[in-house]
Amino acid sequence: MTHPVTTPVSEFADRFDRVRATMGRLDIDCLLIGPSTDMVYLIDFPVRQSERMTILVLPREGRPRLVMPGFELDRIASLPPLFEPALWEDGTDPAPLLASLLPNGGDGVTVAVGGQLFTHFFLRIKAAAPKARFVSGDLLMAPVRMRKSPYEVAALQAASEAADAVFEELLTLPLVGTSERELLAEIHRLLLEKGHDTIGGGIVGVGPNGAAPHHHVSERRIEQGDPVVVDFGGIRANYRSDLTRTFHVGKPTAEFREIYAIVDEANEAGFQTVRPGVTAAEIDARTRSRISDAGYGPQFLHRTGHGIGLDGHEAPYLVRGDETVLEEGMTFSIEPGIYLEGRFGVRIEDIAVVTPNGAERLNRSTHALQVV
Amino acid sequence: MTHPVTTPVSEFADRFDRVRATMGRLDIDCLLIGPSTDMVYLIDFPVRQSERMTILVLPREGRPRLVMPGFELDRIASLPPLFEPALWEDGTDPAPLLASLLPNGGDGVTVAVGGQLFTHFFLRIKAAAPKARFVSGDLLMAPVRMRKSPYEVAALQAASEAADAVFEELLTLPLVGTSERELLAEIHRLLLEKGHDTIGGGIVGVGPNGAAPHHHVSERRIEQGDPVVVDFGGIRANYRSDLTRTFHVGKPTAEFREIYAIVDEANEAGFQTVRPGVTAAEIDARTRSRISDAGYGPQFLHRTGHGIGLDGHEAPYLVRGDETVLEEGMTFSIEPGIYLEGRFGVRIEDIAVVTPNGAERLNRSTHALQVV
Repeated sequence: MTHPVTTPVSEFADRFDRVRATMGRLDIDCLLIGPSTDMVYLIDFPVRQSERMTILVLPREGRPRLVMPGFELDRIASLPPLFEPALWEDGTDPAPLLASLLPNGGDGVTVAVGGQLFTHFFLRIKAAAPKARFVSGDLLMAPVRMRKSPYEVAALQAASEAADAVFEELLTLPLVGTSERELLAEIHRLLLEKGHDTIGGGIVGVGPNGAAPHHHVSERRIEQGDPVVVDFGGIRANYRSDLTRTFHVGKPTAEFREIYAIVDEANEAGFQTVRPGVTAAEIDARTRSRISDAGYGPQFLHRTGHGIGLDGHEAPYLVRGDETVLEEGMTFSIEPGIYLEGRFGVRIEDIAVVTPNGAERLNRSTHALQVV
Repeated sequence: MTHPVTTPVSEFADRFDRVRATMGRLDIDCLLIGPSTDMVYLIDFPVRQSERMTILVLPREGRPRLVMPGFELDRIASLPPLFEPALWEDGTDPAPLLASLLPNGGDGVTVAVGGQLFTHFFLRIKAAAPKARFVSGDLLMAPVRMRKSPYEVAALQAASEAADAVFEELLTLPLVGTSERELLAEIHRLLLEKGHDTIGGGIVGVGPNGAAPHHHVSERRIEQGDPVVVDFGGIRANYRSDLTRTFHVGKPTAEFREIYAIVDEANEAGFQTVRPGVTAAEIDARTRSRISDAGYGPQFLHRTGHGIGLDGHEAPYLVRGDETVLEEGMTFSIEPGIYLEGRFGVRIEDIAVVTPNGAERLNRSTHALQVV
């Protein structure tokens, strides 16, 4: 059922090297990673966060250890041989065990903690290693994870193509009379059929519901004359897709066509700005100014985009204040929108990857307004 | 599609009162809760943890506030009127806003932080309120959430009954030749059919795979003579079910029958021990001793059980060291098992609720060995 993941071990070795190089640069002695996409990234272990402590201890030098429940040992048998387990049993406190694995027992060292670790575990670790200094692991993981390897770009490309295939088939379905909830169920079915292993969230906004950017679904049925915003994605071999298109059922008004054209031009303006050396905030500004120039600035309610990879939303963020300098291999959404409250909304979203001289779209679905 | 949740507003008012009373007892000035079951418990908001800050600020006295993205305001329109939103916009830093909402701006106050909050947010809040003292919100939420209201017990009962109905129908399916993965898919289908809104995790362990307590599924097919462990659950109106049964396909050996009887007697011994005033650890000890006395102590690889409610696993834990004194309304699993590596395993799990004089099982599925 699950798409076979064949991430080569060399990929993980390279990730370790990059993380450790970053630790050296930032003067961080050790990294702690709980169940999260960071853990999938580093050791290919998709374990879920639970009340039992499972934490990777990655010192800048020396052997990585995985603190984990003893009775789950069989679950790591198939992982790449990147670490040694440090087992604890039900009824014992794993926090002192973890503290004992920190360089110098935690005394006077700087420890980065993965951003997705539950505070529950963090506070226990902090109490067990009171002389360690703790900083956010995102400082370390975000810059490493942002720059995708060719393997990762290929994985994201495959996921994006699967999402494109969903949109293409969606347009052939009988739409009038279908409710938002029913259409989302169809999208979910198609996501799996087109090659995703798992469905992500999804939005279907019909008519005025398209004007709420994070509307989910309702019982509203599609009627002739409705614009429809669909925003969906899934996970294929661990990597995410995320696609938004706005289409029209029956003849659109001149105003709708005009808004659609502005959003499409903004998307293209943002895309054309992307190249190594430009900041994430600049892409946002360039995209936004096209919409502001047309007089709809206040109706573009959100940032222009977000990074994508193992997480659906990750660094960099195309938003005012994110001064990340783009590099080759960074991947993110570009998704401007205009939302006219109580009336309709338009959003057009693709995933793009930074190339040596510009950018490439990983989605190939047309931007031409689809009228069905 | 989702089971309509009709939690009365009075239930939330009562939860606020109990949390605030506990804050008084523990000298905690303010509670911070991110997207989590704690947030569902307090304000009925099932928002997912994301990179955008959404945090409930609940001071011991005064109006609760919800720090949240401005453009998501429409998502709280249907919630009970328990708090006032404090909005932030993309491109601004919400941490100083949150710090400004702490009593005394955070200066010299004790702030409890929900255990499921990502460390990513916690470290930002800590930096924005450097003079606050932070403690684990579990100190506060666990004792309150452990004691279920009659409304909550009824919700758990309904979920447990839906799980019982799954097991009953499961036994009528054609099993020989079915793979673990296929059987889990059937269980997932039945969970929804019998009244769950969402499926939880699931385990199907056929033959020797039943000897790994957290085995998930494989392609192993059921053959005549196989014991089968099924462990599954879902979410119905926010509350969880969790049921394990071990059954046998074709005639079991005398040894299997003996092991099954020991596990069943251990389950019953634990259950009979439950009453207000006994500790969680004592239930574990009593259950475990029945298995140890039979010579299988080392083959009972895990704790006896876990609390259940909005989370599949929550306090109290029936394990050595958990000195929680049981009170009426506490709900937890009792799930002893014996695991003979490479051969087979047996586990029998019910959900129980503490009553004034003892306990009641919320599951009604038979413990008699089912041979199909």
